[in-house]
Amino acid sequence: MSVPVPCTFEVNGRTYRPGARVYAAICVDGCGDEYLSESLIRGRMPNLAGAIRKGKRFMGRGVIPSFTNPNNSSIITGAPPAVHGINGNYFLDPESGGAVMMNDGKFLKAPTIVATAARAGRRCAIVTAKEKLRTILAHDLDGIGFSAEKAGQAERGTHGIDGVEALVGEKTPPIYSPDASVYVLKAGAAMVEQGLADLLYLSLTDYMQHKFAPEEPESLDFHARLDEQIGRLLAAGVVLGITADHGMNAKHSADGRPRVVYLDPILLRLVGPGCRVILPITDPYVAHHGSLGSFAVVHVPPGTDLARVRRGLMGVPEVTEVMEKDIACEKLQLHPERLGDLVVMCGRDTTLGTSPAEHDLSQLDRPLRSHGGRYEEMVPMIVSEPLNAAYRAKAEGDPRNFDIFDFTINGTGS
Amino acid sequence: MSVPVPCTFEVNGRTYRPGARVYAAICVDGCGDEYLSESLIRGRMPNLAGAIRKGKRFMGRGVIPSFTNPNNSSIITGAPPAVHGINGNYFLDPESGGAVMMNDGKFLKAPTIVATAARAGRRCAIVTAKEKLRTILAHDLDGIGFSAEKAGQAERGTHGIDGVEALVGEKTPPIYSPDASVYVLKAGAAMVEQGLADLLYLSLTDYMQHKFAPEEPESLDFHARLDEQIGRLLAAGVVLGITADHGMNAKHSADGRPRVVYLDPILLRLVGPGCRVILPITDPYVAHHGSLGSFAVVHVPPGTDLARVRRGLMGVPEVTEVMEKDIACEKLQLHPERLGDLVVMCGRDTTLGTSPAEHDLSQLDRPLRSHGGRYEEMVPMIVSEPLNAAYRAKAEGDPRNFDIFDFTINGTGS
Repeated sequence: MSVPVPCTFEVNGRTYRPGARVYAAICVDGCGDEYLSESLIRGRMPNLAGAIRKGKRFMGRGVIPSFTNPNNSSIITGAPPAVHGINGNYFLDPESGGAVMMNDGKFLKAPTIVATAARAGRRCAIVTAKEKLRTILAHDLDGIGFSAEKAGQAERGTHGIDGVEALVGEKTPPIYSPDASVYVLKAGAAMVEQGLADLLYLSLTDYMQHKFAPEEPESLDFHARLDEQIGRLLAAGVVLGITADHGMNAKHSADGRPRVVYLDPILLRLVGPGCRVILPITDPYVAHHGSLGSFAVVHVPPGTDLARVRRGLMGVPEVTEVMEKDIACEKLQLHPERLGDLVVMCGRDTTLGTSPAEHDLSQLDRPLRSHGGRYEEMVPMIVSEPLNAAYRAKAEGDPRNFDIFDFTINGTGS
Repeated sequence: MSVPVPCTFEVNGRTYRPGARVYAAICVDGCGDEYLSESLIRGRMPNLAGAIRKGKRFMGRGVIPSFTNPNNSSIITGAPPAVHGINGNYFLDPESGGAVMMNDGKFLKAPTIVATAARAGRRCAIVTAKEKLRTILAHDLDGIGFSAEKAGQAERGTHGIDGVEALVGEKTPPIYSPDASVYVLKAGAAMVEQGLADLLYLSLTDYMQHKFAPEEPESLDFHARLDEQIGRLLAAGVVLGITADHGMNAKHSADGRPRVVYLDPILLRLVGPGCRVILPITDPYVAHHGSLGSFAVVHVPPGTDLARVRRGLMGVPEVTEVMEKDIACEKLQLHPERLGDLVVMCGRDTTLGTSPAEHDLSQLDRPLRSHGGRYEEMVPMIVSEPLNAAYRAKAEGDPRNFDIFDFTINGTGS
């Protein structure tokens, strides 16, 4: 087994100095801090508990919109959407007037930490649960990059690896299952054990978190399975950094029906025709959430009195924040090229939709849990080794989830 | 020892049905969820751990401004500031032009749960750490009400009890100490053990949380001491509800200096003379926080273009939200009589001040930790017994910290 080569590289304004250790950052998709707390107090995550006691657990601020693509893109670049350009899963192309899905590396406007590390001599690997995310995150990577969803199709020429099923010892898992996430960690652990990679990004899916509350048995069992693999990684000597892309909250009324504010009719009343609502949570994996999240982008016709629309939207009881585009770009560090005129956020227990006809809620087989807004912004961060003084101070500030590679690589060791 | 008398009473639109049990709600002042997590994972709160495993831990949304008085007033009334009128510690009296401290029950516009329960036949007690809070919370109470700060001065005629020091077995503690909070719980446990009260509100002080981060030894020791008393209360058969008034975050730069945005000079530039900034965290106990929190109220001269000032304030990098008065009253459920023209909030690691001359930072003997804004809004809620189905559903929504009496009394039992 080869010893990892210490090196220094710079990407998006930060310098990383990995030593002769294996480093892995894990993004536990949708892991609100409560998921860890509930599993930990029931003794279901003993390996994580050990890592916390040895290292540090603290809260990080994620990217808003608190969705998967913007946050994973931020974690892999160490930078906000203003730098990497991925404001959501979708944006409205002003030229075509169509909604464009950002599921390709070409939309990424910044180099990734992992691709840069590979050029500096590290043996890098990215494993995602969903294929859509692999295509963004493994952009330009001279290393290993594959998804659990298409593990069996990984080939050396295109994915830097083949024989993944044999390596993991398991067939490609179904994407709508807890197995998809566990598979990502199993693949990561196997690659480390086999000496195939020494700087890894392992990004899970929030299928389980969308379905189950933190204390439900299915959730506890899922986290126990994650913990087993965390234990494997720790046993292999990996310096682990763990965070989440966003939290997760129940978004349904007591009778189990989704709580939704439909924006199209409200905008029709406030502005008239010609508005366009983009829900950047929308993705091809509809069973999770029915495209219902707590963040929306609104495009209005030219000449619209934005101040009046802002006040009108703030008058909707469930709406919590409305920002004009320039303010949203500043406060949320979003990219101006792929944003509408207003961003709208709603409360902890509510989602924003377009119109009832456009949301297929028949796919929801459990009461809706979702994310996207301010109440899913804060996520746990865990580093498995003690932080040095500079990073202990940094943790006592406003650490971001996309600082996780920085904390894991630069924050450990002296 | 007398058996508690089941009864039914209504207050501020809610009905409470306490059974033949002793109920106690505890407000652990400044208890961000991380304080519990850090102490729990180190095994320093075994009694709390048992209560969580038997009952339920979940996150509650507090009142913004995330300060002590508005939240304690909400907890004791089960209602937001729009109902009880306590928007902060201070407000600007439009008639006198002076800042008025709301440290008296006369400012409370709504009856309290505890006073109403006492009239319905329960034996009620309120113990606070600080005297300032006792005068608000014990308003109109036919029962026991005293503060740890002035425990030795409690008299039967005015406080419903005397001989507190003998009861607790300890002298009145200094208010600037961990002992002040522990004393509150000791007094509560002693009263329950002696059969003096069967419905209690025990409200601590955040002196320790302002000084120490969750994982610091002083903080862990403090929480272990709280846990001992929680164990006493549980052993006495109490149904416990635990929450916090607000969270707590580090608000200083890496060199330990407070991070402050001073609003007076900004408003002078944006508006000109005649603005007035009220910091509702201000109180007579200055050693905690130097009157620096993450929420401010701004009064502007009549005729000022509020939209322009809002946009100007949003242009300050550290500012996160600015709301006009009517929107703030709606979204934050504040009382319109005691509010200025704009409310301003800032980020997790920053505070708002008036001008440097008005803040005595020499009293801060540790790097500033404080609260008041959006990032200290979410707090833990714990009920020591299993929730019934209706309240399990309610917990999966947007439970408020001021629902703690409701959850504790109505949410347990069938």
